[in-house]
Amino acid sequence: MQTETASSNEERYQVRKLEITDKNKGFMELLQQLTVCDSVSDEVFQKRFEELKSNGDDHIICVIEDVSRSKIVATGSVFIEKKFVWSCGKAEHIEDVVVDSSARGMQLGKKVIGFLADHARSMGCYKVILDCSAVVDVGGGFLIVDVGGDLAGGKIERFDEVV
Amino acid sequence: MQTETASSNEERYQVRKLEITDKNKGFMELLQQLTVCDSVSDEVFQKRFEELKSNGDDHIICVIEDVSRSKIVATGSVFIEKKFVWSCGKAEHIEDVVVDSSARGMQLGKKVIGFLADHARSMGCYKVILDCSAVVDVGGGFLIVDVGGDLAGGKIERFDEVV
Repeated sequence: MQTETASSNEERYQVRKLEITDKNKGFMELLQQLTVCDSVSDEVFQKRFEELKSNGDDHIICVIEDVSRSKIVATGSVFIEKKFVWSCGKAEHIEDVVVDSSARGMQLGKKVIGFLADHARSMGCYKVILDCSAVVDVGGGFLIVDVGGDLAGGKIERFDEVV
Repeated sequence: MQTETASSNEERYQVRKLEITDKNKGFMELLQQLTVCDSVSDEVFQKRFEELKSNGDDHIICVIEDVSRSKIVATGSVFIEKKFVWSCGKAEHIEDVVVDSSARGMQLGKKVIGFLADHARSMGCYKVILDCSAVVDVGGGFLIVDVGGDLAGGKIERFDEVV
């Protein structure tokens, strides 16, 4: 039974990159649970979406859609900083992680950060930094994480201890 | 006398953006005082320099040159993050601030951060975030600042309280 539920959740909660139609699936309303996020016009949204898209893999936004409701229930963003330190290395910054209040308790926040950390690995980053205030779920409850600086110190696996 | 000294220091310590020739003026050796920063070839340096340059005003590096010695004695970098929150606002992240051990006590770190905060203002950022570990000078001594998250909360003037 447990396997069936896990499999069914896998299908129901789809992890992917932000799409422009997500504005109509509650993406901005979700961000309002994190911080100030007034509604914006479709034009303003589209302009920002295109700006980010032009950065390619250097700035991506992960979302989780509850396909049974066509609703975005979790998100997190990430951008790659190109540095001179660490032999001209790259660091990944995770920002603005939030899970919808109706969907906490299923470790969707962990999925979002896992998606973004995998991105860091694929981009060859030497570290991942969780800069943001994040509203994520931990086990059966939820937790507001308000930290800065390195959580990882080169070991992005350490995120597992945090979320 | 004090005015003459201030004026003479103004000429001696020139605040500007990073130039490609700064590699020969001790830029990488300065970063070694902050964190791991192995020397890199001119080609690797140039490639990273050009990558950052292609981002225009979205990622700049400030340096202070002691022109009497043709030596870079302070630096800090900044990048602009384009968000959806805050009505598709922009946040500025300050990183990798360091003042050379031979030049501490003259508030050059404050000058670097002031330069970068001015940049945030001109770019219309709603906040400035000091993510980094920074080695800066405070008054007659120096201080390692290891903080994350918002120092500013929309009021970048508050940096004056920090450095």
